[in-house]
Amino acid sequence: MAKSPYERLLRQLVIANRVLARHGVVDSYGHVSIRHPDHPDRFVMSRARAPELITEDDFQTYSLAGDELNGDDRKPYSERFIHAGVYEVRPEVLAVCHNHSPSVIPFGTTNLKLRPIFHMAGGIGSDVPVWDIADEFGEGTDLLVSNVAMGRSLARTLGPRPVALMRGHGSVVAATSVPNVVSVAFYMEQNARLATLAEIMGKGDVHYLSDAEARATGEAQLLPNSAQRAWEAWCAQVGMSEDD
Amino acid sequence: MAKSPYERLLRQLVIANRVLARHGVVDSYGHVSIRHPDHPDRFVMSRARAPELITEDDFQTYSLAGDELNGDDRKPYSERFIHAGVYEVRPEVLAVCHNHSPSVIPFGTTNLKLRPIFHMAGGIGSDVPVWDIADEFGEGTDLLVSNVAMGRSLARTLGPRPVALMRGHGSVVAATSVPNVVSVAFYMEQNARLATLAEIMGKGDVHYLSDAEARATGEAQLLPNSAQRAWEAWCAQVGMSEDD
Amino acid sequence: MAKSPYERLLRQLVIANRVLARHGVVDSYGHVSIRHPDHPDRFVMSRARAPELITEDDFQTYSLAGDELNGDDRKPYSERFIHAGVYEVRPEVLAVCHNHSPSVIPFGTTNLKLRPIFHMAGGIGSDVPVWDIADEFGEGTDLLVSNVAMGRSLARTLGPRPVALMRGHGSVVAATSVPNVVSVAFYMEQNARLATLAEIMGKGDVHYLSDAEARATGEAQLLPNSAQRAWEAWCAQVGMSEDD
Amino acid sequence: MAKSPYERLLRQLVIANRVLARHGVVDSYGHVSIRHPDHPDRFVMSRARAPELITEDDFQTYSLAGDELNGDDRKPYSERFIHAGVYEVRPEVLAVCHNHSPSVIPFGTTNLKLRPIFHMAGGIGSDVPVWDIADEFGEGTDLLVSNVAMGRSLARTLGPRPVALMRGHGSVVAATSVPNVVSVAFYMEQNARLATLAEIMGKGDVHYLSDAEARATGEAQLLPNSAQRAWEAWCAQVGMSEDD
Repeated sequence: MAKSPYERLLRQLVIANRVLARHGVVDSYGHVSIRHPDHPDRFVMSRARAPELITEDDFQTYSLAGDELNGDDRKPYSERFIHAGVYEVRPEVLAVCHNHSPSVIPFGTTNLKLRPIFHMAGGIGSDVPVWDIADEFGEGTDLLVSNVAMGRSLARTLGPRPVALMRGHGSVVAATSVPNVVSVAFYMEQNARLATLAEIMGKGDVHYLSDAEARATGEAQLLPNSAQRAWEAWCAQVGMSEDD
Repeated sequence: MAKSPYERLLRQLVIANRVLARHGVVDSYGHVSIRHPDHPDRFVMSRARAPELITEDDFQTYSLAGDELNGDDRKPYSERFIHAGVYEVRPEVLAVCHNHSPSVIPFGTTNLKLRPIFHMAGGIGSDVPVWDIADEFGEGTDLLVSNVAMGRSLARTLGPRPVALMRGHGSVVAATSVPNVVSVAFYMEQNARLATLAEIMGKGDVHYLSDAEARATGEAQLLPNSAQRAWEAWCAQVGMSEDD
Repeated sequence: MAKSPYERLLRQLVIANRVLARHGVVDSYGHVSIRHPDHPDRFVMSRARAPELITEDDFQTYSLAGDELNGDDRKPYSERFIHAGVYEVRPEVLAVCHNHSPSVIPFGTTNLKLRPIFHMAGGIGSDVPVWDIADEFGEGTDLLVSNVAMGRSLARTLGPRPVALMRGHGSVVAATSVPNVVSVAFYMEQNARLATLAEIMGKGDVHYLSDAEARATGEAQLLPNSAQRAWEAWCAQVGMSEDD
Repeated sequence: MAKSPYERLLRQLVIANRVLARHGVVDSYGHVSIRHPDHPDRFVMSRARAPELITEDDFQTYSLAGDELNGDDRKPYSERFIHAGVYEVRPEVLAVCHNHSPSVIPFGTTNLKLRPIFHMAGGIGSDVPVWDIADEFGEGTDLLVSNVAMGRSLARTLGPRPVALMRGHGSVVAATSVPNVVSVAFYMEQNARLATLAEIMGKGDVHYLSDAEARATGEAQLLPNSAQRAWEAWCAQVGMSEDD
């Protein structure tokens, strides 16, 4: 029996978790969510579980206040408020990823700005802000975005952008589809690694993409045809597809 | 037939060795031990064997003087005194890992202190001391902690902390459970790698976790629920579980 | 039934795509082509598809203007003009690779020149130019070489050399056989990584190969006997051979 | 039927090639040899073949002048003279490895000396010389050690030491057994990587092992019991043993 569009979307979400885990973009604590296609004021993500193990059975549905809506009492991610905060103020966003992508950590903890150094990372945009939880919530938190106020604070820093770094923690990525949120997160990690090397080797004299180039390459990266090409390979790597 | 709690604990110890080997935190010479649950003055670890090969058949039981207690004459790790020294003075410690975790080596051999740069490594604490065997035992040793006096010296430097580096050698990690000792060792390696890049890129101007943040994130990292999430994924990676 | 020489060549092209993907030299968007053996004014490459998935069924044949010649209407790589531009002016070139080889990105975006630091990379030559699309096409492109004029511009910068970097994008490699184009691309990536470390560690005082050494090692690298040795191993890694 | 000691030694040599290839210490062009146990003026190594593919059928026997002695006309490694040169003047040496171990390349091409930074690499010794082929053979060679005179020149630079680097090329490692030559080559690669990071991060102020520590740790590393522990794990990694 053919899958429904929603079932295919949930399958994409499983695949996204597996792919990002396989490439080290999420560790055991990152997560990916989708906005519910029929209820824009809800989002869907796994219960608290390592991304590489997630299946369709793990998904839960939340309100934008982070409340589970179907009486599923399995432990949720304490940081679901990251997703809630973004979906609340960004109606065009359909997929969100929170990660501890390793190579971005140095950018969140030094004065260097993360900028796109090659065209595959245009999707991160040319202005990647850093949110520091201490600015609003003090220097003694556990850095987790564990309530609505924190999620909203982070979403304010993110603003209309695709990516915000989180100091000493990781990043949040917002996109209009599951393949795109994976693509931006995947290439942000690689971009951060290469920019780090270029910054050190070039002693700070690095030719990043211009703002216009970042915009144009970002659009090209996220065209359906383009994202689909990588998505097809990623599905093969984890041995899954939307049709399984 | 259901496993006894002690059999499950030994299974955890096998898994811990495999996981840390798989992620390059221990090489062929690192080791993980547990305090014996019924005899607090004893600890259990493998005979001298590469961690990736260890099974339940390899375990031996030692006194806090490092003597094997069951007449098992297979060659033990010469560095079992690291473990003995820690268990002797830290009654709350139930698991110890000694490793040559690669990325921490530069921190043990330069003037830079290893500090938590992101919340996943709060568990290493904000004060990671470096033990130099030469300070007490001279500049001509083979760097191995091969007797009681050396183990006690290292334990004195460790003090009440979760981690001590060993100059030109590696580190020792002390925790209250097997999943927690794996978690701290795993994220210490990643933290060291990222802190190295941040230090170089940021020319020494790096925003580490504050002491209060290190404390709060360390507590969060080691909550049973949190450690369990990564542990479940690690078990799957090595194809083992406590129930096997 | 024995394969024809052309069928074996297409098999080589499949293998080349798989090998370069496996070693991270091409990501989901790089490509390898061959000049058609019977029609020197045509070249053969896959339709737009991730290299790790390519099979013989994906190949299309193009004119040097980048037009598909067999009525195959599957979407082609938008950057086929890179290949067209090189084949047009370099009659001895029989294979071309375009990639986003990660370690070369820092060299295309800083003032440091990529030079061969060890004999396995003599094949990149001692003068590796950097093509900046902005020089001729302005600072607002998406960096893609998506028409004949851009392909010709890149080919002019390449000139008679084996390699040109593309600022903020990747590189193009031209060679006289499929194994050779793989060898040069493979060792260029490694060379760039090692040269980066040497530049940083040596503070700019690095002993690269002399011009004469680069020439001699480049010739040695590309002797059929030499390239074949690596090719045999690469085939085994991807589980394929020309005889399959 | 039980294997003869010589058959077991050849099996070790197969395993050594596979292990070093698996860990990236040799690429498609490195090689490992043994001195013939019954004919000290002969040595045994594979015909020219990628190490990861070698089986017992590939071995050839050479005189110390590099001549094949059994009428086997398959193409030999052109650099067999590296091995010949070392065996000629180092009667205690029973195994030799030539490699392009990536992380040592920066040390052969800058002014920084490679020194042991941790105890697992004591086996490289505290004085690692760099041989530059250009010193004796001019600045236009292909860097290959392709005749007796070059092999002897390299052996003179090596002198009584376990390791010599080769500028712009790689290194040669000499040891008294196959497991030991693998151990020294394996940990030299790791040591070089860590020393590079420490040098950059510590701005040149790095606490290497003292000479006495290098001597003591080198001896400890190469004790049969110690080398055997890693060897057992390496055999498992490549799915082979001396008893196969």
